[in-house]
Amino acid sequence: MDIELKCNRLTCRTSLTEKAVVTTCSHIFCVTCANELFNASRLCPACETSLTEPDDVVVCSLQPTNDYKTSVLSGLSPSTILEICSRAISFWQYQIHQENSFQQAVLRSVNDKNAQLQRQLDNVVREANSQIELLMGKKSELERDLEFERKKVRELQEAAREQSKEYQKLKV
Amino acid sequence: MDIELKCNRLTCRTSLTEKAVVTTCSHIFCVTCANELFNASRLCPACETSLTEPDDVVVCSLQPTNDYKTSVLSGLSPSTILEICSRAISFWQYQIHQENSFQQAVLRSVNDKNAQLQRQLDNVVREANSQIELLMGKKSELERDLEFERKKVRELQEAAREQSKEYQKLKV
Amino acid sequence: MDIELKCNRLTCRTSLTEKAVVTTCSHIFCVTCANELFNASRLCPACETSLTEPDDVVVCSLQPTNDYKTSVLSGLSPSTILEICSRAISFWQYQIHQENSFQQAVLRSVNDKNAQLQRQLDNVVREANSQIELLMGKKSELERDLEFERKKVRELQEAAREQSKEYQKLKV
Amino acid sequence: MDIELKCNRLTCRTSLTEKAVVTTCSHIFCVTCANELFNASRLCPACETSLTEPDDVVVCSLQPTNDYKTSVLSGLSPSTILEICSRAISFWQYQIHQENSFQQAVLRSVNDKNAQLQRQLDNVVREANSQIELLMGKKSELERDLEFERKKVRELQEAAREQSKEYQKLKV
Repeated sequence: MDIELKCNRLTCRTSLTEKAVVTTCSHIFCVTCANELFNASRLCPACETSLTEPDDVVVCSLQPTNDYKTSVLSGLSPSTILEICSRAISFWQYQIHQENSFQQAVLRSVNDKNAQLQRQLDNVVREANSQIELLMGKKSELERDLEFERKKVRELQEAAREQSKEYQKLKV
Repeated sequence: MDIELKCNRLTCRTSLTEKAVVTTCSHIFCVTCANELFNASRLCPACETSLTEPDDVVVCSLQPTNDYKTSVLSGLSPSTILEICSRAISFWQYQIHQENSFQQAVLRSVNDKNAQLQRQLDNVVREANSQIELLMGKKSELERDLEFERKKVRELQEAAREQSKEYQKLKV
Repeated sequence: MDIELKCNRLTCRTSLTEKAVVTTCSHIFCVTCANELFNASRLCPACETSLTEPDDVVVCSLQPTNDYKTSVLSGLSPSTILEICSRAISFWQYQIHQENSFQQAVLRSVNDKNAQLQRQLDNVVREANSQIELLMGKKSELERDLEFERKKVRELQEAAREQSKEYQKLKV
Repeated sequence: MDIELKCNRLTCRTSLTEKAVVTTCSHIFCVTCANELFNASRLCPACETSLTEPDDVVVCSLQPTNDYKTSVLSGLSPSTILEICSRAISFWQYQIHQENSFQQAVLRSVNDKNAQLQRQLDNVVREANSQIELLMGKKSELERDLEFERKKVRELQEAAREQSKEYQKLKV
């Protein structure tokens, strides 16, 4: 049921399953991207927050061991435990919300692409039809002209034949 | 940041903001749909689980008052409180997961539609082009034939003129 | 491991195991006490807060069914779930803290009683010893006096015997 | 409201406020005791569990910074977060339960001491009374004997005086 978070670098978006790097500004990155990005600067690549405190950027294991799960918050008071729990749930909720917005944007862009393709298809069909219609008209016209010339040829040949008969009669 | 859940009846999918009806099989419905569906039968409309126990189908306020928030779990032991908390978070996580799957399915269907439109466009372009090419070929052929017949007409007219001259000469 | 809460009415302090009545001012009572106290007035018997809202005084089951545990917070957002969870844990923590203070007070009172008993024992021992010493002194004094009188008796009897002998001699 | 946990070494029981060392067997020690105890052996000083895994014995800050609270569980799924939260609450509940049992044992021991003192007081009173009674009896007896001897002295003195008178009469 668990939804995997994705590296927040838009050019990466790898599913995060084992290790990840989280920031106090609620972003998460794969280890490869984090190494590359945080070596260059202490600004969050997603929101440009300055991350200068020691716990601002932390490597975390997404599949903690049972011993880790048992001991990480042991000794803290219930109010502190629940505060930590709330912050972590908020982090997750923010990520899901961002991923949701991203998916909505992808869907919108695919829908736009769709509408554009439909328009393109309509245009192509219309233009092709008008061009075909034009060519068909031209073809009919040419066929008519051809028929007319052929009839003329036949008439001229008939007239030539008549004249040739008259010429033979006269010669005789 | 909070993501609104949606009525799990696929023909409704209203955003749920004030009141809703939840089931122990982890589904949620708007009050209108719930009234209609659970009056007809005690099966969950989303997964067909039989819901016969008193707490199986419960109306809940999605914006509880502070007094309700203070008193609803008061008196319970921390382990029971956290068990309830876990179950409610699981419910929410399941809903988010289902919504996510739904969005993925919508995206897949829009992408499929997209690919289909692209194929249709390609087909239309190819067919139109082949038809236009055919017509252009036919047109060129007709123009060649027409030119040939016209030349023949001119030659026949020339020959007729020559013969007519011969005939007049002979007559004289 | 679960610690049972106790009815907050000091004259009752029954362990609460099945049903209880909780208030938004973080107090809990057994059903019998609650019926008696809240019928008389809407003031909290423990802290005198006015409890006039509908969710200010709520009957709760301390052993909720699985269906109840599943559905009571279902549909709520994670932030609301955790807020409710925090409030319920705070309630429990407050009760444990009060019980702890009560136990400390009991311990202090038993320790005070202890010190008082020790002082009482010391006094009794001292007084008894001084009285016994006094009596022993008196006893020794009486024994001395008695010895002295007995010696006197013996001397007087001796003297009487001598005088009697003298008297007989003279008579003869 | 937060109840401070105490070092689980019975000879220490320092209140833990800043740093502490926790074990996966649900015990907690002050840093001084932990250094001393875990350098000697990897057995829990409270329950003798073998603690050989890396996360079995962990130093924790009881006043974590906000950055730590934000990042420690970030990136984990809600189910993992709540599992961790449950384990930490159980740890705390176990400590409170142990402290409660300890306080009950202290109270029982003080109550036992109390009963013993009361018995001791009763014994002392009874013994002192019986001894005093005995002495008083002895004293009365001695007073009686003394009175008897004094009377005898007086009688003997009277008899001596009478005899002395007879003796003088006879002599004359």
